[in-house]
Amino acid sequence: MSIREEVEAANRIAVERMMDSEPVWNNIGLARKLIPGMKDMMLLHAGPPVDWKNASGPLKGALIGACLYEGWASSDSEAESLLSSGRVTFEPCHHHNSVGPMAGVISPSMPVYQMEDKSGNKAFSNLNEGIGRVLRYGAYGSDVLSRLKWLSTTFFEVLSLALKELKREKPGLQFKQIIAQALTMGDDCHNRYNAATSLFIREMVPYMIRCGVEKKILLEVYDFINGNNFTTLNLGMATAKVMTMAAHSVKYSTIVTTMARNGTETGIRVSGLGEEWFTSPAPRVNGLWFPGFSAEDANPDIGDSAITETAGFGGFAMAAAPAIISWVGGTSAKAMQITERMYRITFTKNKYFLIPSLDFSGTPTGVDIRKVVKTGITPEINTGVAHKNPGIGQIGAGLVIFPMGMFENALRSFGRTYGLV
Amino acid sequence: MSIREEVEAANRIAVERMMDSEPVWNNIGLARKLIPGMKDMMLLHAGPPVDWKNASGPLKGALIGACLYEGWASSDSEAESLLSSGRVTFEPCHHHNSVGPMAGVISPSMPVYQMEDKSGNKAFSNLNEGIGRVLRYGAYGSDVLSRLKWLSTTFFEVLSLALKELKREKPGLQFKQIIAQALTMGDDCHNRYNAATSLFIREMVPYMIRCGVEKKILLEVYDFINGNNFTTLNLGMATAKVMTMAAHSVKYSTIVTTMARNGTETGIRVSGLGEEWFTSPAPRVNGLWFPGFSAEDANPDIGDSAITETAGFGGFAMAAAPAIISWVGGTSAKAMQITERMYRITFTKNKYFLIPSLDFSGTPTGVDIRKVVKTGITPEINTGVAHKNPGIGQIGAGLVIFPMGMFENALRSFGRTYGLV
Repeated sequence: MSIREEVEAANRIAVERMMDSEPVWNNIGLARKLIPGMKDMMLLHAGPPVDWKNASGPLKGALIGACLYEGWASSDSEAESLLSSGRVTFEPCHHHNSVGPMAGVISPSMPVYQMEDKSGNKAFSNLNEGIGRVLRYGAYGSDVLSRLKWLSTTFFEVLSLALKELKREKPGLQFKQIIAQALTMGDDCHNRYNAATSLFIREMVPYMIRCGVEKKILLEVYDFINGNNFTTLNLGMATAKVMTMAAHSVKYSTIVTTMARNGTETGIRVSGLGEEWFTSPAPRVNGLWFPGFSAEDANPDIGDSAITETAGFGGFAMAAAPAIISWVGGTSAKAMQITERMYRITFTKNKYFLIPSLDFSGTPTGVDIRKVVKTGITPEINTGVAHKNPGIGQIGAGLVIFPMGMFENALRSFGRTYGLV
Repeated sequence: MSIREEVEAANRIAVERMMDSEPVWNNIGLARKLIPGMKDMMLLHAGPPVDWKNASGPLKGALIGACLYEGWASSDSEAESLLSSGRVTFEPCHHHNSVGPMAGVISPSMPVYQMEDKSGNKAFSNLNEGIGRVLRYGAYGSDVLSRLKWLSTTFFEVLSLALKELKREKPGLQFKQIIAQALTMGDDCHNRYNAATSLFIREMVPYMIRCGVEKKILLEVYDFINGNNFTTLNLGMATAKVMTMAAHSVKYSTIVTTMARNGTETGIRVSGLGEEWFTSPAPRVNGLWFPGFSAEDANPDIGDSAITETAGFGGFAMAAAPAIISWVGGTSAKAMQITERMYRITFTKNKYFLIPSLDFSGTPTGVDIRKVVKTGITPEINTGVAHKNPGIGQIGAGLVIFPMGMFENALRSFGRTYGLV
């Protein structure tokens, strides 16, 4: 086989494994118990590695909030000194088979969803807090901390019981199917999860009713889920993570298996290139701003949520979700163009994620670093935007085009690794 | 004012009233108690008036089934003789502010939804049985009858209690908003109600949980609703009916306020022309057939469900629901074309029903008989198809183009009524 054929064959294996992964949600538990390598006084965060000095404002805010939430510090300045001294360590979620939206901070006593596929791979994500002033956008006020507390007690208990009830009937909740259905119902499953959350509710209600929890508590949890269409974002991200794990470590493969941003840098990892990160400075987001904010206030692009595009949905399925494009300031023609353009840098059309408005074409799936470099087209995604200062929260949403440098570096590294240069 | 200006002004009033009607679901009860003019030994049916001799197979089947359900007959032949003798009478749903999908048969002891708008108008529709062998497609076996029995007991009781619970908080469930949202989630709200049913479930679950019904019964009813995406079809039709009632009886208005088919004839009524029906022979449906069936087996077009298009959604919003078009055998370009074509025969773009893929253009709203005759374009809708013989059920689904004759007749009558000829 020529090297070109080797790569094609490897990419086929990687992308087929990714598409055929059948993630099920089959556990919810504390991060310290479920996430591999999670230690006391350790935090996880979105994107590639970063140190305290270079951490972006919203990431700092979320790390501070997590120290307060864990009781490691009783003020933000105390938390800062813990974090800057290295007594509290922090590592990328992706180093622990995990993903978190925006700042993506996960601390040991936060509950996390576990998504497992038939290969036995397990991926994890934290719980969704809703929108506005929330930890993942860098806010850490008492409102934020008490919501996190409620999520880790009441919400966690009810969802645990409901999932236990569900598992009396089946191995778990098949989440790829929910995403596939939601894409036919106007979701992109990155920034619009209205349909996915509806479908999740439809599935879970019987188990929530049967699980034996008191009516008042049940209704409290139901109202929170029903009031937050981002409830399923984290489940969707964990689904994408376990799918992309299936595609990783295929020798010769040029398929991207991680795309993630920490607010300072954007990074990718590639199937055939092990655990190495290739990074570029995080780009600015072309956004629409909430009243009172402007581009000046915006932190550069942040979050692990680009795992959705890595797995073939989210922004790549924008044509399926014309409603999202208006939310980030575009037209439906632009939504179509983005999806069409992403076909040029991906390996194939997804077998399972279909776009009705493109006569059920599959979504662009499997970013190939060769195609990115050759075409000059980088992945384009949609995202929320955090204030650049810690402690504030979300200030808008928009579209972001990934930087080219990291793809070029990855391709050069590929050449060296496989003796092509 | 010139006559042309009179008509324009009248049409504006009619269509604005229709769009601004705010239907809420605020009652569920037996047809005999709620529907005006409903009598013992009387049945209601879809479409314009028809006699037994000329009734289509599925309509006959549903009328027979209703006699059995009511206990007026103990066999189909007994039912037939009751119906042909006139001892059991039947009248159009539309003569009683009601609508029913397909055969649309409503009998006195069936529960019906009541939809009321701020003007005090009330419209009614029956409960949805699911798909396949069901009364509305002309089936009347013991399975059909026992499902109807369950709907009128268990299902009816739970929904009554849940609605009572809801009404402790608000006047009713605002259904125009559900339709508007569902149109942004891939529904057309004629033949695809997946999103609308999801949204209905999300709204109703808390009240179902709180209403005090035993858990086992609650779950039985929940599973039925969750298993039948057509649950909200009848609520959507009653919504459309009360909206179109708001547009009716505006002097000089050429806006169509009823489009309905009984399987033998298709008929319309016009805002400025009182209660008169204008009819044409019911057309054949251009359909996709279930395995084992063909165009040979298909009954001509039937049902009151074209009330959805009359009110500006359903087939007219096909561009919002590319998934539906594959179900009836077309491409997404065709879905776009249908919506675009319907703009040419309607008064305006809807203020509330928006199509994301057309950059949130309003749906084509208010069929104007003048434009239909002038352009030669008649309304095109999507529909289920019943077997032509009584007792069988659904055999497919497709697209149907309404006949021109009835629009020409209506326009001639308009000329006579207003002294223009």
